[in-house]
Order: sequence, then structure tokens, then C-alpha cells
Amino acid sequence: MVGFSAAVIRRQQFLVRCLVGCNISSKNLSYTTIKMQSVVSGGSPDFAISILRSITPSLDSSRHKGQAGKIGVVGGCREYTGAPYFSAISALKIGADLSHVFCTKDAAAVIKSYSPELIVHPILEESYSVRDEDKKSISAKVIEEVDKWMGRFDCLVIGPGLGRDPFLLDCVSDIMKHARQSNVPMVIDGDGLFLVTNCLELVSGYPLAVLTPNVNEYKRLVQKFYKVKIGGVTILRKGGSDFISNGDLVGAVSAFGSPRRCGGQGDILSGSVAVFISWPVSVLLNGAEPESYGYGVHRRVCFVEKSCFACI
Amino acid sequence: MVGFSAAVIRRQQFLVRCLVGCNISSKNLSYTTIKMQSVVSGGSPDFAISILRSITPSLDSSRHKGQAGKIGVVGGCREYTGAPYFSAISALKIGADLSHVFCTKDAAAVIKSYSPELIVHPILEESYSVRDEDKKSISAKVIEEVDKWMGRFDCLVIGPGLGRDPFLLDCVSDIMKHARQSNVPMVIDGDGLFLVTNCLELVSGYPLAVLTPNVNEYKRLVQKFYKVKIGGVTILRKGGSDFISNGDLVGAVSAFGSPRRCGGQGDILSGSVAVFISWPVSVLLNGAEPESYGYGVHRRVCFVEKSCFACI
Repeated sequence: MVGFSAAVIRRQQFLVRCLVGCNISSKNLSYTTIKMQSVVSGGSPDFAISILRSITPSLDSSRHKGQAGKIGVVGGCREYTGAPYFSAISALKIGADLSHVFCTKDAAAVIKSYSPELIVHPILEESYSVRDEDKKSISAKVIEEVDKWMGRFDCLVIGPGLGRDPFLLDCVSDIMKHARQSNVPMVIDGDGLFLVTNCLELVSGYPLAVLTPNVNEYKRLVQKFYKVKIGGVTILRKGGSDFISNGDLVGAVSAFGSPRRCGGQGDILSGSVAVFISWPVSVLLNGAEPESYGYGVHRRVCFVEKSCFACI
Repeated sequence: MVGFSAAVIRRQQFLVRCLVGCNISSKNLSYTTIKMQSVVSGGSPDFAISILRSITPSLDSSRHKGQAGKIGVVGGCREYTGAPYFSAISALKIGADLSHVFCTKDAAAVIKSYSPELIVHPILEESYSVRDEDKKSISAKVIEEVDKWMGRFDCLVIGPGLGRDPFLLDCVSDIMKHARQSNVPMVIDGDGLFLVTNCLELVSGYPLAVLTPNVNEYKRLVQKFYKVKIGGVTILRKGGSDFISNGDLVGAVSAFGSPRRCGGQGDILSGSVAVFISWPVSVLLNGAEPESYGYGVHRRVCFVEKSCFACI
């Protein structure tokens, strides 16, 4: 964790506390390997509720469209259309104002048909629809399209229903690099984790990344990088108990949820986490001018360079 | 029935008992012609309930995605999209964790749009969209795509909304052969029964096949093969009373259901039967490692070679 600003570290801790719903001590800020023995669980429900209250945007008439969160989901291909839908719609149901999906052309019409509330961009391409000589130009066009929107998002979700097509994954790698350059927080789930497992540099050392692997995805991550520290990210390992760690502190959530383990539940979590990441920013910027907030420039500067979380 | 392992015979009896909901004696295991005179009906409802309880996966937090059943439906073409949807969605509603559909490209977008909960693979082709010289390579590609998933399924449903296109049916024949080689159980309904009526070898002697004909489909099967024993499969003949037989024992279900006979009811049954086939396996493997279970390898070995059902 050494090397990141105190503000970013505080933000990460804040996020962990929000998700875990318990009071984690912040005495040790140095980077250590993940110690499951040091799991902190339980804590005061009142504290969790007070944190949630403090980050949940108030419903008053002074707010403008977008101030309660603008989420972008990168996922959806010929095979998978349900996963990005569940992720994007759950962001709206949690309380975000706007939810976008960036997917392939094949997937777009179907995802649009699930709900008129989503804004769906048919911009990704899979190998089967692209000639080799066109790959470079198409890849550049994809990035150009996503970049138009990048600064407006409070959080991106990378991976639900992304599939494993090599060309598509290359394009998404580029999107992740641009998101990182623009300091946009990212929740990485599903096939996005496959991408990260094969290229750790995409997130390593990026404090605004949250990985949400299930037990098997987590094992694959650990098996691939058991000698390497996945530094500076937050990992939310789903399971009977969910474990959440920023590499230093580990929290556990064992609260009872649905005992079914059907497809789509992880996607719902990813969209929800994205909103919980976006809300603290929204709270901090409540006093900011809507027009500057709308383009996200002020927010990024504020978020990364200033010690915004000191006051929480 | 001679020639199959005792474990497989026990499994079949178990399945028949589950579906019939009555206590059938298992004294005579030798193959005999189907004797409708020997129908067993009635029995103890308590026994039926205890069997259903014993195969229904418990809803506890120790389970992982997929352990309550992964079903694949092969069906859906330019004309028919509702049938595969009803079959696949009923599998989810009964309690399976994941439900896939393998259909033509024309059908895929429509079936996807019915529900984001289904995973729909647009891989089948009909004659009108394929040139003769491409048929061999396209057929090989279809099999390759299905084979990627084959080992993961606990049961396949073959036939809902499949249509009668000769090229498509040839591809589905190949899928059935591969499923059989991989010891994947199959429920065969609708146009899948047309396929079987024209090529009995696809299922004959395969103890993991369940045919679900209505009265007319059953008549066509019998007329075509009245001199041939359809050995080693389970037949569920739908009607005012449903008759279920493995060629040795016959059960009847006369419980009151909907008196309407609208389209789609048989598809709902096929998806439901697929889940009831997958659950006993899931119960047996409750203690298996999720990763080995996930790829289905352990399950197949366990299912076919070991006497798993001895303990039930």
C-alpha cells in the first residue's frame, strides 16, 4: 500500500467499512499479505447503518440527474446478455441515476429489450465479425467511443457476460487502461477476472479497483499469482461468508442471504458494489456545481489528489 | 436391461420411483416387454414425499453455483422459439442453478429476450442458410461448440422447438451421440422424438435416456418399432394418466393437473424432468470438491461406474 496517497488509502478503508458493515481498526497502513486469520467480523450494526446513511444520497429536490450515480457496465456478447443486464439494472435498483452497458452489436438489441431504463452502446466486436486487417482501426474506434463517456462515470463494472473472445478482451484491456488513466473506479467480475488473471498489471497497484471473485475464480487468481502480491486493490471474495480485503485488513460478511446459487447473483452484486463506490463521491460533491460534476473532471481531481475522506 | 451395471439399473428404478411417486417392487431386473397390465399406481404419498425430499438439494450457504443442476436444452429454430424457452425456464423454476439453450441464430435473439436468466447459444443452422459444400465444416463446428459445454451439464433436453430441417436434425443426431459418449442423461421430447423414431440407435440401450412422448408420438414410436424392443430407456407417455416405464416396471400418475391442453405444457414437463434427473446426482456428490464437480468429470465417473445409488 506504500506509495499511494493517504487520501486514497482512507477511501479504500472507507469502502471496506461500508461493504463489511463493521468497524475495522486502521492502525496498520503498511502493505502485508492477505491474512485470513485476521478477519474482522461482527461489529456494531448501528455503525454500519450510520455509514450507509452517511453515503446514501438524500432524496431532495435540489439534486440533478446523475448526482446519485452514473454507472457503466462493460460486458455482453453473442452468448451472454443476461449478466450485463443484471449488473446494470441492479445499479439502478440500488439507486443510481443512470446505468449504461457497453456490449457487442449482437447483444445490444437483446439487452435493450430487457429494459428501457438502460442505455446500451453496441460498440464492442468479436473476432468472428472482424477481419485481421481491420482489427487495429476497430480497436481504436471502440476506445474512442468509450472515451467519450469515460469521464462521466462514477464507476465502471468490467466483465459481466464479456465472454472469452481474444479480440474483444484486448479491446476491454485498453478500456481498463484508459479508465485507470482517468482515475475511474472499477469493479471487476466474471470474465473480467479471467482477463486480470492473465494480465495482473491491469489492476495491480490501482487503489480504485475492486475484484469480486467467487471461490473458484479466487483460487485461479491465487494459483496464478501465489508468488506475487496483488497490491493496492480491494478483493471481495464471494462465498458462504464474503471476505473483503484491501491487502491489509480483512472483513467478513456472514449475514444470511438467498441460499440459492443460481446464475446472475454475482452480476447483481457487481452492479450494487459499483453504486456503493460511487455514493461516497456523490456525498462529498453535494456542494459542487452540477455542470462541473456532470463532466466528472472536478470529481477526479478531488477524489485522487485531495484528502476528501479525512472528514468522514 | 442385461448388460448394464447394477448401479445404472438402480438409478433408473430410483428415477422411475421419483416420477411415479409410488413404491415399486424391484424384484425382477431382467428385461421384459412393456406390460401395461402390470401398471402400479397409488402407493404411499409419504413415500413419494420422502423420495422427493431426499433428492431435493438443501438450501444452505455451503453450496456453489451450479451444484443444484445445470441443464442444456437443444431446440429452437426459425419457426419455434417458445418451446425451448418453456423447457429451459421451467428447469430454473423447479430449482436448477443454470439453464442453457442451443438453437439457431434466428431463434437466439428472441429466446434471449424472453428472459435474461437463460444462457442462449446461437449455434445451430438450418438448410436454407447453409450451402451444400459447407455442410460438413458447419456440422463439425456445431459439435465443437456444444462439446465445449457437454461435460458441464447434468442433463440435456433434446427436441423442444427443434423443427424438422434435415441438416439441423443431422447435427442434433451428432450432439446426441456425443452426449451418449459422455454419459450425459437426455430427456427427449417433441421433434427429438421424430428424430428418434427415424433412428432408434440414438437411444436404444442407453439407460440415461428418458423419452416423453404424448399419445400420438407414442403411437408413432410403437408403429415404427412394434417388432423391436426399445431397450434400456425410460419412457414417460403423457396422457390423461401418465405412464412411466423402464421396459420392466410401469408406473402411472393420475394426479389432477391443469385440464387445459395448450401448447407448451410438454416443454415444461421436459425441463422439469431434466432437473429431477440431475438432482439425485447432486445429492450424491454433495461432498465432492466444487471444482471437480464443476467440470462434471467426477460426476460422470461416479455416476456410471460406481454403485452410488446403493445408498439410497
